[in-house]
Amino acid sequence: MSKNFHKFPLQNETLQFEIYNLMKMMKKLKFLAVLWLVASSSLLAQELESPNGQLEMEFSLLKDGTPTYDLEYKDKDVIKQSKLGLDLKEEKDLLKNFTVADVQTSTYDETWEPVWGEQKEIRNHYNEMAVTLLQEDTGRKMILRFRLFNDGLGFRYEFPQQKSLGHFVIDDEKTQFAMTGDHTAFWIPGDYDTQEYDYTESKLSEIREKMESSITANLSQTSFSPTGVQTSLMMKTDDGLYINLHEAALIDYSAMHLDLDDENMIFEAWLTPDVNGDRVYMVAPATTPWRTIIVSDDARDILASKMTYNLNDPIAIEDPSWIKPVKYIGVWWEMITGKSSWHYTNDFSAVKLGVTDYESAEPNDTHGATTEHVKEYIDFAAEHGFDGVLVEGWNIGWEDWFGHSKDYVFDFMTPYPDFDLEEIRDYAKSKGVEMIMHHETSSSVRNYERHMDEAYQFMKDNGYNAVKSGYVGDILPRGENHYSQWLVNHYQYALEKAADYEIMVNAHEAVRPTGIARTYPNLIGNESARGQEYQAFGGSKPNHVTVLPFTRLIGGPMDYTPGIFEMDISKLNPDNDSWVNSTIANQLALYVTLYSPLQMAADLIENYERFPDAFQFIKDVGMDWSESIYLEAEPGDYVTVARKEKGTDKWFVGNVNGETPRTSKIKFDFLDKGEKYIATIYSDAKDAHYKKNPQAYEIRKVVVTSKSKLSQKSAPGGGYAISIVPAEKGETKGLKKL
Amino acid sequence: MSKNFHKFPLQNETLQFEIYNLMKMMKKLKFLAVLWLVASSSLLAQELESPNGQLEMEFSLLKDGTPTYDLEYKDKDVIKQSKLGLDLKEEKDLLKNFTVADVQTSTYDETWEPVWGEQKEIRNHYNEMAVTLLQEDTGRKMILRFRLFNDGLGFRYEFPQQKSLGHFVIDDEKTQFAMTGDHTAFWIPGDYDTQEYDYTESKLSEIREKMESSITANLSQTSFSPTGVQTSLMMKTDDGLYINLHEAALIDYSAMHLDLDDENMIFEAWLTPDVNGDRVYMVAPATTPWRTIIVSDDARDILASKMTYNLNDPIAIEDPSWIKPVKYIGVWWEMITGKSSWHYTNDFSAVKLGVTDYESAEPNDTHGATTEHVKEYIDFAAEHGFDGVLVEGWNIGWEDWFGHSKDYVFDFMTPYPDFDLEEIRDYAKSKGVEMIMHHETSSSVRNYERHMDEAYQFMKDNGYNAVKSGYVGDILPRGENHYSQWLVNHYQYALEKAADYEIMVNAHEAVRPTGIARTYPNLIGNESARGQEYQAFGGSKPNHVTVLPFTRLIGGPMDYTPGIFEMDISKLNPDNDSWVNSTIANQLALYVTLYSPLQMAADLIENYERFPDAFQFIKDVGMDWSESIYLEAEPGDYVTVARKEKGTDKWFVGNVNGETPRTSKIKFDFLDKGEKYIATIYSDAKDAHYKKNPQAYEIRKVVVTSKSKLSQKSAPGGGYAISIVPAEKGETKGLKKL
Repeated sequence: MSKNFHKFPLQNETLQFEIYNLMKMMKKLKFLAVLWLVASSSLLAQELESPNGQLEMEFSLLKDGTPTYDLEYKDKDVIKQSKLGLDLKEEKDLLKNFTVADVQTSTYDETWEPVWGEQKEIRNHYNEMAVTLLQEDTGRKMILRFRLFNDGLGFRYEFPQQKSLGHFVIDDEKTQFAMTGDHTAFWIPGDYDTQEYDYTESKLSEIREKMESSITANLSQTSFSPTGVQTSLMMKTDDGLYINLHEAALIDYSAMHLDLDDENMIFEAWLTPDVNGDRVYMVAPATTPWRTIIVSDDARDILASKMTYNLNDPIAIEDPSWIKPVKYIGVWWEMITGKSSWHYTNDFSAVKLGVTDYESAEPNDTHGATTEHVKEYIDFAAEHGFDGVLVEGWNIGWEDWFGHSKDYVFDFMTPYPDFDLEEIRDYAKSKGVEMIMHHETSSSVRNYERHMDEAYQFMKDNGYNAVKSGYVGDILPRGENHYSQWLVNHYQYALEKAADYEIMVNAHEAVRPTGIARTYPNLIGNESARGQEYQAFGGSKPNHVTVLPFTRLIGGPMDYTPGIFEMDISKLNPDNDSWVNSTIANQLALYVTLYSPLQMAADLIENYERFPDAFQFIKDVGMDWSESIYLEAEPGDYVTVARKEKGTDKWFVGNVNGETPRTSKIKFDFLDKGEKYIATIYSDAKDAHYKKNPQAYEIRKVVVTSKSKLSQKSAPGGGYAISIVPAEKGETKGLKKL
Repeated sequence: MSKNFHKFPLQNETLQFEIYNLMKMMKKLKFLAVLWLVASSSLLAQELESPNGQLEMEFSLLKDGTPTYDLEYKDKDVIKQSKLGLDLKEEKDLLKNFTVADVQTSTYDETWEPVWGEQKEIRNHYNEMAVTLLQEDTGRKMILRFRLFNDGLGFRYEFPQQKSLGHFVIDDEKTQFAMTGDHTAFWIPGDYDTQEYDYTESKLSEIREKMESSITANLSQTSFSPTGVQTSLMMKTDDGLYINLHEAALIDYSAMHLDLDDENMIFEAWLTPDVNGDRVYMVAPATTPWRTIIVSDDARDILASKMTYNLNDPIAIEDPSWIKPVKYIGVWWEMITGKSSWHYTNDFSAVKLGVTDYESAEPNDTHGATTEHVKEYIDFAAEHGFDGVLVEGWNIGWEDWFGHSKDYVFDFMTPYPDFDLEEIRDYAKSKGVEMIMHHETSSSVRNYERHMDEAYQFMKDNGYNAVKSGYVGDILPRGENHYSQWLVNHYQYALEKAADYEIMVNAHEAVRPTGIARTYPNLIGNESARGQEYQAFGGSKPNHVTVLPFTRLIGGPMDYTPGIFEMDISKLNPDNDSWVNSTIANQLALYVTLYSPLQMAADLIENYERFPDAFQFIKDVGMDWSESIYLEAEPGDYVTVARKEKGTDKWFVGNVNGETPRTSKIKFDFLDKGEKYIATIYSDAKDAHYKKNPQAYEIRKVVVTSKSKLSQKSAPGGGYAISIVPAEKGETKGLKKL
């Protein structure tokens, strides 16, 4: 029994335990246990409820010794009885013939302080049940550990050290999530290599017919099933329950997708295979990641849930003082839009690092990462208070950087002839701006690992404290997938090694996060979804940003790169007719609605100079928070959140809106009572529209108090952003009250 | 044209070139050119002859623009007209539609000094022809570079930097070697993962029927064709020509096997594929390895050939003074025979490094690498003048070290609880003995590369200057092969990084060498063949060691680990009924016949203590040579060689014999005239026999001069060894003349 068992103020732990179980048993019996035991073929049911009593789960064995669980929320079924187990490759499966050898329950309640985050303190409070199973015919032991929080359930498989189970290969994880009906889901196609899809909103029963049209092109992609979807998966039931399925603490295991049996509405885990089709190589003692079910009848609770972080280990970095939120600009959007290029010359059909002679190559006129141009960005960053400048395309190798399965694609060390790294380094330092490193790996991960120590050391030697890494294209070792165990292991390796060098990591195209930033908060960002860049690759759905907080952001922050002010991309590059499906007010709101300790102002300097008043919000907005309050939320429709800046009394509010125009109604009762604040409201103009009139915004200053209310219209693809600053004496003069 | 063109003492190089070609054309015309041009469909024949005129080759194009070559030795066909070209995966093939755009010929003659070797100086003398081909329909350029030595032909494909050929994937290399008849071959089965096979001697036409029985079990093996064989392949023609096919300078390419069309007796290159079945990923500018044909009518010339080294680049290590031959003993044979174990405990079915608790584990009684036992070896090494002591099984992880596709299998740093690394390190130092590191990777190469810097640094910090590395079991990344490009690249990476740390490498189970030790002489050994260990795994053929010099040793030295004195392995381990198919005299001779700068005395101390007089030869034998003279040689039957120790006037002679008893007849005319030497002859006793009486040997001391002759009987699986030391005054007293 855990030493954290302290729910009951009794001295004797055994007694405590018995009373606890007795109470639970009696409660359960009253409602359904007897009936249920008769109706099903389950044996030996074990129940657990959440600290607030609103969630209840039950573990039981089928007659053939198959483990199962179910979950209820406020006495409504969330997960119907669902099977658990693992199909092994060579050994006998871990699916049935189990008996319960032991059950341990405990309660845990702690509060921890994240290095960065949406709130200053996070409560980690759950009741736990660890069921030790014995497989009768093999003598093998497996523990199923359930943690029931007020916001959901997490469970995992554990394999203690034992003689009869050492090495084993998982062929399939057979974990089920049996739905209670044909829910509405916000899903992206299951894929071993990319999450960069627009979300499709559909009934579960419609996934199959909508699959093909949901699979859009990507530089590396591998779909696997007509009903396969990715996590985190957001669903809404007809009776108003919000259910989110994902995983936590994905370490040395392959990423889990879900495959739907759309006759019975049962999801089953679908692990990303390796090159041989094997899913996971395990060495006991070992555990799987946590499988997570966040549930509530209020969508805002899903966004506020910290369960995914709580299921990860506490921080592993002794002194994390070097980890800090970063607001940055960069030489990037101009390449994304095709206005300029990553590569330096058009001379080469192939580059061989160390052999290809760049010094005698003819520079093209499109290379973005020139010393002069980067200095303009440094100047702009310094002038407007940005922490850092990211530069992509600074290092040799971009002429043939993807699509060739190229092994030695970058050395991460050698700048192009027109990028004077030392001059830029010194210039940035003199301006108080940090340079952000860029390590595109082109998914050649052996090459990256070979250079990693030297490349990280090179960063530290030159004052770079953060790296954006990229995994574009198919993986090398060839045949591996972005989300297979081999790669999951690699991303973690890169992250932990970065921690050794005190480097912050923002990994793009890597596996989606699963709360690992609790343990390694130097993981300040991931892409791992369809980011803003797709607005320059043909556009994303206008409501995309109202879905991301319910899906991609459940596991950790995203480097979405908000702040695009010019929606007509052809104005940057006549050959690109993409359109950014968003209003400027929506872009501003993203700095608040898409929580991240890493936020870019992604547009070109010249576009910010055209709209200095709107740009002011990006300059002002906080980056780290002591408190976050989700005011309104409905996946696919809208998200409104208020956040209090850590270390100040400033608040920032963001609202993003989907395709339907909507009036957001919020109260300011989160403000300190009796205090006056000046709120600057950046909202859509009346005629604003993501497509027809995206740059129509209004800015107004008003006085607000904890009694204020706002009724604010948001345009299609629009939204609003508010900065709220405690009013100094006399400042409110001439300003209206809201 | 190369600046080394100096065959003709003319000033004008163009004129030189024209005269050279004219002379060759006239010569050729006289004999066969006209006839041949009519008979074949070849166009534009280009000829080249060796510096001594004994070899002639011709390059020509077929009517469809397919490149071909042929080779003659003393006007006899060696290679009939054979096609050249590459089958590409996605691009148009590089097989036909070629025209000759340019032909450059030149002569090269240099002499270089190897850091270690069979001789002090090596002459690198060849005529070269570089044929630039233009593929008409694609505009792509490909150069075929031929180097014709007195001992054979090397040629390769070159792909200069060009717009129309950047990245390409080789599906198949279509290089042919068309034999003139049904030669006798000494071959091992083609295999992507192991060369650890006994050689089969057969007609080419018999390969197919003998293939199945030639494939014996290995921990990792992948055969591919019923007529697929490995290089270096040794053949003998019915009219007495010896032909050896291999490759040189295998760098960032996959290892070449040969597949026989046994109707037409044409070998074709068969490159080791990667996990997807692709052979090689190329980035221009690039070259293939050299394809080599060593040929002579005297088998001794094959052994003496240095062509393979000559086709490699000159040394890349600026100061190689730290590279030294090593004579060593070790805690190894006892594990190989099963007398003791690599692993420390029998407690664990699986080990998780950093988690598994060794300190509380129960030690087994079989662990070999204990501090006490290693000290015995250090004492013995010091007493008998050995340079080093190898210890395997010193580091944690051996409990489950292979067969589990285990990723994190070793850390290369953490000793077992009963191996006190620091105490051993200091003790060895105090005794003037160097410890030799052992890095078994279990073929988990990502894991090895991740630890490599730290592991090499750990070696240097603890006084280890040489490492034996191992690649037992199937490769990780899973699906890759031991000889695919991915792995070839890895072995080279490990070697070059070792050079950075001034570490000598002896890589077991790695790809067979191709003369790379010229460039990186810190590659002091490889296994890459069936070594002595197989004598404890059921035995090898008694004539195995008469084949190895003609095959495996063509590309570089082998860590065969000679010196076994106890042939009945059941005396070491009652459960092992293996028999070492060799006499003691044969074992002694191996130190001379199997050239290597790294030689082990592989047997247990107690076995050497039983035969101190025979052991004396192992103590005395030289390790580095100023001169080597192959006195007798016939593959499969016998090899006799005399070598002069570098820096002394001592000579050592070795003779190994196959299954048939034989009398070796040698002259000592290699000795300085007029000098007297004392020769100690270690020979088979009259009734010696590898199986029936292997420990029957005789030792006699005689006086020899340059006029001496020896007629010495060698038993089946036997041989003899001689040490020849210049006689000091008075030393010859009482000794007979030979």
